[in-house]
Amino acid sequence: MNIAITNGLLITADDKDTCKNGCVHVNGDTISYVGAEADAPAFDADRTIDANGGIIAPGFVNTHTHVPMNLFRGFADDMKLMDWLENAIWPAEEKLDEDAVYWGSMLGMAEMIAGGVTCMNDMYMFTEAIARAADESGIRAIIGTGIVDIGGGGGGKLEKALALFDYVKGMKRVDAAIAPHAEYTVSPGMFERIRDAAKDVGSRIHVHVSESQGEHEECIKRHGTTPIGLLNKLCVLDVPTMAAHCVWVSDEDMDIMAEKGVGVLSCPRSNLKIGSGVAPTAKMLGKGITVSVATDGAGSNNNLSMMEEMTLAAFLQKGVYNDPELMPAQTAVKTATVFGAKALGLGDVTGSLEAGKQADIIVLDTSGLRYCPKNNLLNHFVYSGSDSDVSLTMIGGQVLYENGRITYADEEEIKRKASEQTDRLLK
Amino acid sequence: MNIAITNGLLITADDKDTCKNGCVHVNGDTISYVGAEADAPAFDADRTIDANGGIIAPGFVNTHTHVPMNLFRGFADDMKLMDWLENAIWPAEEKLDEDAVYWGSMLGMAEMIAGGVTCMNDMYMFTEAIARAADESGIRAIIGTGIVDIGGGGGGKLEKALALFDYVKGMKRVDAAIAPHAEYTVSPGMFERIRDAAKDVGSRIHVHVSESQGEHEECIKRHGTTPIGLLNKLCVLDVPTMAAHCVWVSDEDMDIMAEKGVGVLSCPRSNLKIGSGVAPTAKMLGKGITVSVATDGAGSNNNLSMMEEMTLAAFLQKGVYNDPELMPAQTAVKTATVFGAKALGLGDVTGSLEAGKQADIIVLDTSGLRYCPKNNLLNHFVYSGSDSDVSLTMIGGQVLYENGRITYADEEEIKRKASEQTDRLLK
Repeated sequence: MNIAITNGLLITADDKDTCKNGCVHVNGDTISYVGAEADAPAFDADRTIDANGGIIAPGFVNTHTHVPMNLFRGFADDMKLMDWLENAIWPAEEKLDEDAVYWGSMLGMAEMIAGGVTCMNDMYMFTEAIARAADESGIRAIIGTGIVDIGGGGGGKLEKALALFDYVKGMKRVDAAIAPHAEYTVSPGMFERIRDAAKDVGSRIHVHVSESQGEHEECIKRHGTTPIGLLNKLCVLDVPTMAAHCVWVSDEDMDIMAEKGVGVLSCPRSNLKIGSGVAPTAKMLGKGITVSVATDGAGSNNNLSMMEEMTLAAFLQKGVYNDPELMPAQTAVKTATVFGAKALGLGDVTGSLEAGKQADIIVLDTSGLRYCPKNNLLNHFVYSGSDSDVSLTMIGGQVLYENGRITYADEEEIKRKASEQTDRLLK
Repeated sequence: MNIAITNGLLITADDKDTCKNGCVHVNGDTISYVGAEADAPAFDADRTIDANGGIIAPGFVNTHTHVPMNLFRGFADDMKLMDWLENAIWPAEEKLDEDAVYWGSMLGMAEMIAGGVTCMNDMYMFTEAIARAADESGIRAIIGTGIVDIGGGGGGKLEKALALFDYVKGMKRVDAAIAPHAEYTVSPGMFERIRDAAKDVGSRIHVHVSESQGEHEECIKRHGTTPIGLLNKLCVLDVPTMAAHCVWVSDEDMDIMAEKGVGVLSCPRSNLKIGSGVAPTAKMLGKGITVSVATDGAGSNNNLSMMEEMTLAAFLQKGVYNDPELMPAQTAVKTATVFGAKALGLGDVTGSLEAGKQADIIVLDTSGLRYCPKNNLLNHFVYSGSDSDVSLTMIGGQVLYENGRITYADEEEIKRKASEQTDRLLK
């Protein structure tokens, strides 16, 4: 099917930083043209979508999620990290099963797709159920099976993580990764086994790094080096690594991350809510590190809005480092889109509006009060907009959200089933 | 007119912290009952509004705005404070006139009313035009004429500020205040004149305090004391004072503020975006200071969403002070509602759902994905919700927003006129 999206402001998020009026042509699952209408080649569109003067942008890449945790939204807030984990989250997670994870995933994916997220990178358990939900929803996804061999919390074994690679074969937009939970829950020996296995299957590694000050400092006490230092010493970073949080990384850590091409998955809202702090993302960008923005799970956020995350990512750097020039709007957009794609190894696939990439595209309605006056639509997108501006979400050329509803499933059924699962787990 | 709002979760924001299902009865402009449907007295409603299981809450009190600055939204972002003021905002403000201020105000008020704001406290110039817009919009408002007698920036004279008190007489929900801009733009002598004038007319004083580190420290150099110390020395704080920002106030400042009953108008998003920092609001609350949350102007935010401000106000305290127990959801709601009313001297008038108060009420639709599953609607309201959940806004018993539209004016005309004024000012 050929689709033309016309009459919009293009925010391309590519190297050219284009921000001008134009159109996008979609040929099957692929973008075939991005640019001014006047320069567009002849195109036999089966469907034309009028952006009505709104924004046409790449879909958001949400680089760190625990999507089934949508079931736990709001049930335990305002608690200290270990209290929250030990007395709320872990006991609830113990009751999880395939059904709960599937419906929690369907719920979180619907929320993301409605909010313009076209690609996600997950870490959790019962990952076959997550992969099935992603395949049915149509969202582009990397699913990492969480591995834990010390301490508390859920997490499967390496064998289970590897089995997922077979399970997702044949799924159009779903891939697998291996996800050792963190330095404090995975032994050095297990990290080495994971490293070798990841090399064998050509997987990326998805891991939590220096999320809290306590975790960072206890690692130094235990191993004489930081989590990044330890992962480097164990040659884990020789495998393409996606490092979530990185709130407490040192300057030396950052140099290692830049050298090893570690992608950062920063979760500003979650880091604030749990009391972890603010990651030095502007500094990391300055060192040439690929920094992306993510929502984390709805247990600690409590929504999966990349619009809100992008805004906060920019505001926090300016405010906490007392420099309003840090993380300008154009850069903030990239942390939520193309830098995310790069961090996930999908830089050639998604994250920007470029011919040849997959048609992962969102359209935003800019007719509302918060976009008036139209002094600068890019700035409005980053600093004034909200999820509810997203009027259409397309993934791989398929329209999965429009007219306020997801198109691929019954939203009411998803909400009902997810609520039933939650009742079963929490009551 | 008698209106019953039924079938909702009541978030009362009063001392009882009620959070249970029930209804509200509105008799003319006043709340006559809040509580369980079963306990409700007989009520002859002219209209019944079904909240449909959603939230019924007090409207937001936005305690620090420069509402005409909606015209400048997005036109100058990512700039250092003095660069932004001297090269963008002040030159644009020089061209302002009654018409521009009126339409900018109508735009900002429409955005606020649509986002559930029922009361605002403004500081700007051409304040008769702002008061006229508030009166026509129906929003509850205190309008302060900004006074500046040193340094740059706009601001009228004391005589003009006093004339506004006559102008607003007869306006149902609009009151005036005197608004000396800040320590660095108002001389000590002028502060003393303002103090005496405020006592004469029974006005509150609305002033910027310790917004940036530079301002705070230069005051100490100039006067040997902090801005709060100076205002106290000048006996300005003997007049009820509404102090915006208070990012850099010292412990000693806080003790003075607590003793003098200074209300804090904290603007977390603006403080971040301009690079000022994070106000110690949890600490101030702990010292018994009335802390409220506000949006500031759309030149530095860039929207007037109290939902987003409330969320960030809570998240920031947890994150920056590394304690997730700080500013729990129930407290965050109060900073956006009843504490705001108290800071403005309207504690008996608005800010909570209590019989006898004005019917300033919002209804939120909680049927969306971000409120599912319904583990805790209060937490969802604070940590997951967004402006677009507001389905109805009532001020003084009048429904001013419902079905996605303002009811008191033509939204399209406001957007068109405000855009025309912006074009005239900025092009």
